[in-house]
Amino acid sequence: MAPFVHDFEHGNKDAKDLLGGKGANLAEMTNLGIPVPPGFTIDTDACRAYLAAGAMPESLAAEVDEHLATLEGKAGRRLGDAGDPLLVSVRSGAKFSMPGMMETVLNVGLNDESVEGLATQTGNDRFAWDSYRRLLQMFGKTVLDLEGERFEDAMDAIKKAKGVTGDLDLDTDDLRDLVAAYKVIIREDSGAEFPQDPKAQLMGAVEAVFNSWNSDRAVLYRRRERIPSDLGTAVNVQAMVFGNRGMDSGSGVAFTRDPSTGAVGVYGDYLQNAQGEDVVAGIRNTLTLADMERIDPKSYDDLIAIMAQLEAHYRDMCDIEFTVENGKLFMLQTRVGKRTAGAAFRIAVDMLDAGLISEDEALQRVTGDQLAQLMFPHFAHDGAQALLTKGMSASPGAAVGKAYFTSEAAVAAAEDGTPVILVRRETNPDDLHGMVAAQGILTSRGGKTSHAAVVARGMGRTCVCGAEQLEVDVRGKKFTAPGGIVVKEGDTISIDGATGEVFLGEVPVESSPVVQYFEGEIDPDAEDADPIVRSVHRLMQIADRVRHLRVRTNADTAEDAARARRFGAEGIGLCRTEHMFLGERRALVERLILAEGPEEVQAVLDELLPLQRGDFVKIFEAMDGLPVTVRLLDPPLHEFLPSLTDLSVKVALNEAKGEVNEHDDILLAAVLRLHEQNPMLGLRGVRLGLVIQHLFQMQTQAIMEAAAIVATKGAAVTAEIMVPLVGSVNELALIRQEIDYAVHEARVAHSVHFDHKVGTMIELPRAAVTAREIATVADFFSFGTNDLTQMVWGFSRDDVESSFFSEYLEKGIFPASPFETIDRDGVGRLVRIAAWEGRETKPDLKLGICGEHGGDPESIHFFHESGLDYVSCSPFRVPVARLEAGRAQVMESQGNAG
Amino acid sequence: MAPFVHDFEHGNKDAKDLLGGKGANLAEMTNLGIPVPPGFTIDTDACRAYLAAGAMPESLAAEVDEHLATLEGKAGRRLGDAGDPLLVSVRSGAKFSMPGMMETVLNVGLNDESVEGLATQTGNDRFAWDSYRRLLQMFGKTVLDLEGERFEDAMDAIKKAKGVTGDLDLDTDDLRDLVAAYKVIIREDSGAEFPQDPKAQLMGAVEAVFNSWNSDRAVLYRRRERIPSDLGTAVNVQAMVFGNRGMDSGSGVAFTRDPSTGAVGVYGDYLQNAQGEDVVAGIRNTLTLADMERIDPKSYDDLIAIMAQLEAHYRDMCDIEFTVENGKLFMLQTRVGKRTAGAAFRIAVDMLDAGLISEDEALQRVTGDQLAQLMFPHFAHDGAQALLTKGMSASPGAAVGKAYFTSEAAVAAAEDGTPVILVRRETNPDDLHGMVAAQGILTSRGGKTSHAAVVARGMGRTCVCGAEQLEVDVRGKKFTAPGGIVVKEGDTISIDGATGEVFLGEVPVESSPVVQYFEGEIDPDAEDADPIVRSVHRLMQIADRVRHLRVRTNADTAEDAARARRFGAEGIGLCRTEHMFLGERRALVERLILAEGPEEVQAVLDELLPLQRGDFVKIFEAMDGLPVTVRLLDPPLHEFLPSLTDLSVKVALNEAKGEVNEHDDILLAAVLRLHEQNPMLGLRGVRLGLVIQHLFQMQTQAIMEAAAIVATKGAAVTAEIMVPLVGSVNELALIRQEIDYAVHEARVAHSVHFDHKVGTMIELPRAAVTAREIATVADFFSFGTNDLTQMVWGFSRDDVESSFFSEYLEKGIFPASPFETIDRDGVGRLVRIAAWEGRETKPDLKLGICGEHGGDPESIHFFHESGLDYVSCSPFRVPVARLEAGRAQVMESQGNAG
Repeated sequence: MAPFVHDFEHGNKDAKDLLGGKGANLAEMTNLGIPVPPGFTIDTDACRAYLAAGAMPESLAAEVDEHLATLEGKAGRRLGDAGDPLLVSVRSGAKFSMPGMMETVLNVGLNDESVEGLATQTGNDRFAWDSYRRLLQMFGKTVLDLEGERFEDAMDAIKKAKGVTGDLDLDTDDLRDLVAAYKVIIREDSGAEFPQDPKAQLMGAVEAVFNSWNSDRAVLYRRRERIPSDLGTAVNVQAMVFGNRGMDSGSGVAFTRDPSTGAVGVYGDYLQNAQGEDVVAGIRNTLTLADMERIDPKSYDDLIAIMAQLEAHYRDMCDIEFTVENGKLFMLQTRVGKRTAGAAFRIAVDMLDAGLISEDEALQRVTGDQLAQLMFPHFAHDGAQALLTKGMSASPGAAVGKAYFTSEAAVAAAEDGTPVILVRRETNPDDLHGMVAAQGILTSRGGKTSHAAVVARGMGRTCVCGAEQLEVDVRGKKFTAPGGIVVKEGDTISIDGATGEVFLGEVPVESSPVVQYFEGEIDPDAEDADPIVRSVHRLMQIADRVRHLRVRTNADTAEDAARARRFGAEGIGLCRTEHMFLGERRALVERLILAEGPEEVQAVLDELLPLQRGDFVKIFEAMDGLPVTVRLLDPPLHEFLPSLTDLSVKVALNEAKGEVNEHDDILLAAVLRLHEQNPMLGLRGVRLGLVIQHLFQMQTQAIMEAAAIVATKGAAVTAEIMVPLVGSVNELALIRQEIDYAVHEARVAHSVHFDHKVGTMIELPRAAVTAREIATVADFFSFGTNDLTQMVWGFSRDDVESSFFSEYLEKGIFPASPFETIDRDGVGRLVRIAAWEGRETKPDLKLGICGEHGGDPESIHFFHESGLDYVSCSPFRVPVARLEAGRAQVMESQGNAG
Repeated sequence: MAPFVHDFEHGNKDAKDLLGGKGANLAEMTNLGIPVPPGFTIDTDACRAYLAAGAMPESLAAEVDEHLATLEGKAGRRLGDAGDPLLVSVRSGAKFSMPGMMETVLNVGLNDESVEGLATQTGNDRFAWDSYRRLLQMFGKTVLDLEGERFEDAMDAIKKAKGVTGDLDLDTDDLRDLVAAYKVIIREDSGAEFPQDPKAQLMGAVEAVFNSWNSDRAVLYRRRERIPSDLGTAVNVQAMVFGNRGMDSGSGVAFTRDPSTGAVGVYGDYLQNAQGEDVVAGIRNTLTLADMERIDPKSYDDLIAIMAQLEAHYRDMCDIEFTVENGKLFMLQTRVGKRTAGAAFRIAVDMLDAGLISEDEALQRVTGDQLAQLMFPHFAHDGAQALLTKGMSASPGAAVGKAYFTSEAAVAAAEDGTPVILVRRETNPDDLHGMVAAQGILTSRGGKTSHAAVVARGMGRTCVCGAEQLEVDVRGKKFTAPGGIVVKEGDTISIDGATGEVFLGEVPVESSPVVQYFEGEIDPDAEDADPIVRSVHRLMQIADRVRHLRVRTNADTAEDAARARRFGAEGIGLCRTEHMFLGERRALVERLILAEGPEEVQAVLDELLPLQRGDFVKIFEAMDGLPVTVRLLDPPLHEFLPSLTDLSVKVALNEAKGEVNEHDDILLAAVLRLHEQNPMLGLRGVRLGLVIQHLFQMQTQAIMEAAAIVATKGAAVTAEIMVPLVGSVNELALIRQEIDYAVHEARVAHSVHFDHKVGTMIELPRAAVTAREIATVADFFSFGTNDLTQMVWGFSRDDVESSFFSEYLEKGIFPASPFETIDRDGVGRLVRIAAWEGRETKPDLKLGICGEHGGDPESIHFFHESGLDYVSCSPFRVPVARLEAGRAQVMESQGNAG
């Protein structure tokens, strides 16, 4: 049987599965000859065996004994020796870092005898008794699972009796008293004495670490961070070194490069006569490494040399913890260091330039999420601003403007040049022009996938949603925040879409140079260019070169299309036509609905035709030859009418007043006739096209005529006509006849040739499982993963975010909202079935995806793996998608190579 | 290459794919030595080749010539011979009968010369010229595709000039004139002369038959009847015989047994001096076969002998067409005869008893649909009753009662012993008690899967829905039918759920003896037992013996459960608990929704517990040991509150009047808070259980306590607890912990043991595609094919039936409503995936289905093939399911054997 315990000499940094992150890196440093206090790791196999059996593996105690003996040999001291005791730390170390989640016990080996030996050896009574006091407290809480309160109460009592407040005000005698008091607490609360046997202490501490793997908070943390629950933790047992043994001792943390800017040069904090916890706790003001050089040049030089060695060895920026004990430097931990988004880009490119890493590796060092962070403006706030409330971070960015409560008011104010924050209880499609006009959107209802959030993300507008503490009074043109603070129309507020914070007044904003670069306003090759911008540019070039997955954009207007092109979009994957039916054209839709007989319907369609044609002309011009996928009308028609409830109330009030409004009555009859219990599952998409004669034909005609107009101006056109909500090949076959007819007519009429395709959304489960048949009449598939997610899970994003999603995320039922990151097992399986079986029918079938997931990094990797040709996402996510598509390709190549 | 043309001597009845039904049976009879006019069949390969190429296969004309020569030899006459012409009929004959859809041309071979020959040979000028006239007309319309109107106008003109009205009033000269006129029409409208060449006539007629395969009406018919569109039709060319050559000639149709009762003994109609069309058209009164025996004993004896031969040969009741020409009998067609449902059962059992067919074959001779027809009462109406309107046939049966417009009024009237028809615009769950009290339900809105229809079918109540011509005025307690007829509360109406007819007044009703048999009120073995009842009993015994698929019932009350048991149910597959929350208990649900904090919630649950327990006790007692599957609460809670629109109107009117109703305001706030855009996709099912603490625990406790109570009375209990709307194994795992805890507690408290299982509905696509994981924590799966169909297709049955289903059925997008018959390709594929992968995880996983499809014959066969253990359906469908389960098993065995 494989051993459970491993000396640091027998591990390496790649053995994280078995040794945990901390243990593996300690082993790596040990083997590099770097000074690390000696120790050993009890591996995750032991933990898993313990958790499965509920008891320590039989051989473990003997193994620990054996390795402890080796450790004692190296240290030249014996654990708990009365004269010169070896003390050890017992620390958890799982494969993935779970900060604060798991247990640690320090100073193991102290007892009533060895505390005296430690005092003698160090010549520091107070240090020895304080160490013993800490062991008792930690052991009681962690190993014996006692309430921490009694320990704290006991210390407070002694302080109070002495009339002091700080821990440092207690002298050796006080600490002796405290030790006595702690022992009583342990006896009374646990029913047993504190174990004087050092080995019993050690094994107790190991077991406590094992148990901490399944503590409530650890379980919850893992669910949220998607860390598998069956990994278990390793335990590191290591000789203690003390940075608090005098002024020639100290502790510090350091990074091999600046973790916030990525600049070359070491960066760290040092504290004399202190332990690691003191540095992190920030109780005393830390010194810089430059100060350390002055104070302790030898240790400093050793540290710098070790840091250089580590960075060269790890080929990445490292984060380290160290302790100097009586002038001797020890390394206690190292790992690849966390860094800001900007630093990540800069470090990757710097290391690439230095020849430390390859282009592929550089691409793996950054993420799309980091790029997205760099693209949003940030508040430069100093804490002085009045925080009104906190909502959900729906669409990142920092927006400042005057509050307006209707879209009309927002548009009017924006036209006067006033920056606007549109404040609504919730938004609906009618608010689109208000949202376009606003700097940011604030709602008091709805979750991260509410209308406001989705549309705002699509437009790159800052949005805070679901700020439930706000009472929004649209009629009164004001909202009330907690504490009774009232914000009226025209008052300035600031909203932070990254944190969900809402501030009263103006908070200064820093704009994003990365966006300026994408917009073409900054030259990344200029000598004085921001190094982060230069690094982003460099890595985008690499990503674009390696990626196979194309990136398109979802854009309904020429403005969005143009921006997306600047951001690198290679076409439009989704141009929705429903927004084109809003505003003044709503009256036409109303007439369409109220029309009696096919002639009236046709008359309305004839009026809509030139308007639609005009919309398409602008979009085709903006894209000039890049493919444009136009989705035919999708939403149920009654979305264009007033709500049943509002209209019913209006009519009832009219009646009560004895007034007659014939139009309202007619409208109400129509609304009642069209009313659906579940509009998401009603008359929409291709069903509309099959029921309302010539509707899709009119749209096709508009597309083709627009293409003809643009083509005669000399621009190229590639039009892809997309039919929504197809569930059966029969639907598509019938509607395709109508579309092909309109295409043919337009071609004959305008005698120009341009490429066109007819395809379908795959957004119903039935479309996915019958893709083999549907592919016989489709030139392309575009996965509508929003609707597909709704149908596969049976919940609508309009409804469930507020009612049970938070509960589901909390309970770990979802690792992430399936509307944000594709659900691989459920929705993803259907995507793959459709992709494979569609291509079985038609090997050159073009496959894309135009749901919200097209801009989500993890989902992009999935689509790459599934063999899709392109993803389509909102303009602001286009650079993210380009980067992640490159990363996905690199990961695949590495997987194939490995 | 295989030949395209086959003499009747070279075919047989099993060659329907190639020769079509008519041709195959003509060949079979020819080979049996039965007198059939000689002829040949041009096969479906030729048709398919013609349709694919758009032109006649090259070799066809030569082949036809060759076979025509053989035919002329047999007939002793030549086609179109001037002296004694052979005439032929050219008739279509596809694999599946498509009555009236395809073309026929008779009298081919007549021209200006041969018409004189025919006149001479038959000594009947008028007959000859009338035959020629008919050929010209049929050829013009069918082969040349001319408008029929001009031919009819020409005949009308001659009649008018002569001052007569009937065709028979025209003499030979008139017909000569008509022939001349028809020739002019053909010349003018087709631009060519009528072909005098008999072979050109023949080939033109053949081509016309081929083309008729793709006529609009044929295409539509095939879509509706689910006949594949690529089969093509065969063409039969046969020597004409004439039943209208005098009083020693005649035509008839006959069945070898009575097709309406199934009684032994021939049955048919005969007409002297007439052609087949005249018999069918019913212009002249036909004679019985007994009359024929008197008139023409020789032909009669021949006919009886041939019918006996055919029945013995086909081993089934046959339907035949015959003609006597100058005292000689010819058979023109035979096929297995259509029959009523009752006759089907009786004939099958009679033939089984006679040793003609096996038990397996007998079972194949009847269908579940036929059994269902036998179970419904019928109107015995004589046409004298006033038909008010026709709606959709939602749930069969015949119901008579007084109209009531609210459930309260219906219940009150029923309590006084009044038979009631509940008339509503549409029904909702609140109408349940009214529907229970009523004999039948009539609605003016909603389709075949509306609430009214589904619930009515479930209860076996007669229902006509979507009678859109009725204006229902609930407040005025009346409805208005077309013609302004007003029906007031208390007026008697009769509704026919099989036809959708609604009558004013009482129509006499015949009850169903088959239901009386299932209810145990009729002894099928009694000497005077209805032969149909005896036959049903016999075939049910056989079905029960052979079937592997178990049959359970969907029952929410003890009454339904008891009836289902009498009907042969082997357990409850779906006991819904939501109905138990209606009526007086609605107030408790309202309190549950308005509860503030977990204590208040728990208080309501504590009150619900004993009520629920009482419900379950009754059901367990009724089932005594048979398994009972209880589905935990499924619908969204706001279904128990008033509608948002109604309440908003109420509150607005209160406000307008200056009145305050605090309860309404609180309720409105709650309704607004719980309001969902798409309740079907909202907070329901397991989500409710996870969000409302202890709700499912309470229900489980009630089930277990009820089981304990019943068990202590000595009855056996098998409880299966079913969790609805699970999409992820995580949901089920979490809720199962709660259920298992409640089960454990109840077991400890009552110290009795009874079997229990915990399982889940598979009704979301995600549940189906992750069944492998879900099976790890489920003891059984029950497919909820209603919801699964909604999610897979993305439409809700509440919404789409009225808006586009009729259009979809018309256009052939669905062969049948997927809510009635399982959609094999889409929904069915997911059912199979879940069944197979669930069993991969857990080979003994129990699989059932409890959607509406559980009672649908075609769907039952699918579930059998998919390896399910049971289907569950409404009590009235249980016998149907038993029968179809037996038939499915027989079909599988035959498939395996064959």
